[in-house]
Amino acid sequence: MKFQVMVAPNSGFCFGVRRAIEIASEAVASGEKVSSLGPLIHNPQVIERLRKAGLEPVEEIGAITGGKVIIRSHGVHPEIMERLLDTDIEVIDATCPLVKKAQQAAALLSSGGYTVVILGEPNHPEVKGLLGHAPAAMVVDANGDLPNLPRHARIGLLAQTTQYPADFRSVVEKLVKNDFEELRVFNTICNATVIRQKAAVELAGSVDIMFVLGGRNSANTNHLAEICRAAGVETHHLETADELDPACLQGYSRVGVTAGASTPEWLIDQLVKRLEELSGT
Amino acid sequence: MKFQVMVAPNSGFCFGVRRAIEIASEAVASGEKVSSLGPLIHNPQVIERLRKAGLEPVEEIGAITGGKVIIRSHGVHPEIMERLLDTDIEVIDATCPLVKKAQQAAALLSSGGYTVVILGEPNHPEVKGLLGHAPAAMVVDANGDLPNLPRHARIGLLAQTTQYPADFRSVVEKLVKNDFEELRVFNTICNATVIRQKAAVELAGSVDIMFVLGGRNSANTNHLAEICRAAGVETHHLETADELDPACLQGYSRVGVTAGASTPEWLIDQLVKRLEELSGT
Repeated sequence: MKFQVMVAPNSGFCFGVRRAIEIASEAVASGEKVSSLGPLIHNPQVIERLRKAGLEPVEEIGAITGGKVIIRSHGVHPEIMERLLDTDIEVIDATCPLVKKAQQAAALLSSGGYTVVILGEPNHPEVKGLLGHAPAAMVVDANGDLPNLPRHARIGLLAQTTQYPADFRSVVEKLVKNDFEELRVFNTICNATVIRQKAAVELAGSVDIMFVLGGRNSANTNHLAEICRAAGVETHHLETADELDPACLQGYSRVGVTAGASTPEWLIDQLVKRLEELSGT
Repeated sequence: MKFQVMVAPNSGFCFGVRRAIEIASEAVASGEKVSSLGPLIHNPQVIERLRKAGLEPVEEIGAITGGKVIIRSHGVHPEIMERLLDTDIEVIDATCPLVKKAQQAAALLSSGGYTVVILGEPNHPEVKGLLGHAPAAMVVDANGDLPNLPRHARIGLLAQTTQYPADFRSVVEKLVKNDFEELRVFNTICNATVIRQKAAVELAGSVDIMFVLGGRNSANTNHLAEICRAAGVETHHLETADELDPACLQGYSRVGVTAGASTPEWLIDQLVKRLEELSGT
């Protein structure tokens, strides 16, 4: 086999993920007991490394046995924050600042009496956190029908930070067809998402096969894979280089690699190295 | 000739115009000297009747020779209001409440630091008034290109009350393609405009010829005529029944009539009566 490997210029860790990991690494460096409420980021391999360094993911406040707790990059429901503040556990907030901004937008719209609409995945921890700030919000996806909105509504719209800009626009286009008095749209999609998606589409257009590297539980990684497939190129979503089946490379001369915002450099390097070995370069 | 005459169920005076005329009629009833700054509404025949009753339209504050002045339905630039309040002239505000609402939206967006975009006709008195409340606003039409907007902008959009909802939606769709942080849309298009346009399109679809009655200087009347033409039916814009050329009715069996929001009942009645005479019914 002989092929060229190209890595998307924008891929891997975004600012918010890098920041959360730095915060976590600093916290465990003290040697104290540190938990994270849910996995810190959506990448099992990184979580495993952090666990070895002393960061224990727990699912419930009750499972925290003292020490410090880190709020993960996706943020939490404000009730959980309040419950934690009632305990002796020290809270370290690693919520991505862009998620925090989305939470603030949700709170502003909710307290301002807007009918709040959130484009996102109802079960994603970020969306659950947003719902804590706008409890009556409706969570929609771009392909489904919009829920019935009151007439003459003041509608507020925001999105989970990792949604597609095109989907966001399509929701705005649907909302604006309603009878509304005010439509207030906060563009909470993070720029890292946008530029990773653009770079992935561009690369997908010039290769024979794409590998999208990242956690299977990572929304933005799944979106990257979907986008590459939609661009018409054979696409494989891998968590690690070990999952690579060399047979799928047969007959291809240009191989593309991209990675989600929660995929670390070392996992990307491992995959690229493995591909280069297979190519004999 | 034998044809059926159908009048659009929603046509003629809107709430704001009716209110302005009531305010003006009450003001002149006292016998005092009353001016209006610009024509009270955009209908020359109504203005002529009001002039006979004692309401004198003037173009400039300097031309007001005492007594009272009525602010017309389209509103004014706040500087003019301030200048008037510095004089001894009594100001009677007949600004349409819906125009006032649009002015408030413009002021809110402007003082809130938004980049303000107004869908409207730059030289229309209502738009001039709106610009008084949002001096840096950009006035756009739906068919032209949008001006360059700053990156990460907080964009505020509103419309002249008599614009087409479809045009408004198309501006939103263009704006949402920009790189923006917040897009805040106030739907300031008045419902009377919307229902008159809907009724006109429906009627246009079931007749051979349409007559749109109203001032040639009336934006909403011009829009009604444009909409009927776009629906593919022969359309004549008339100010009065006298302008009707019977020859254009030749061979037609269904005649439609609609009228702008500043067209009085008596002008509509005159046209319908004239058409019925020609039809011999």
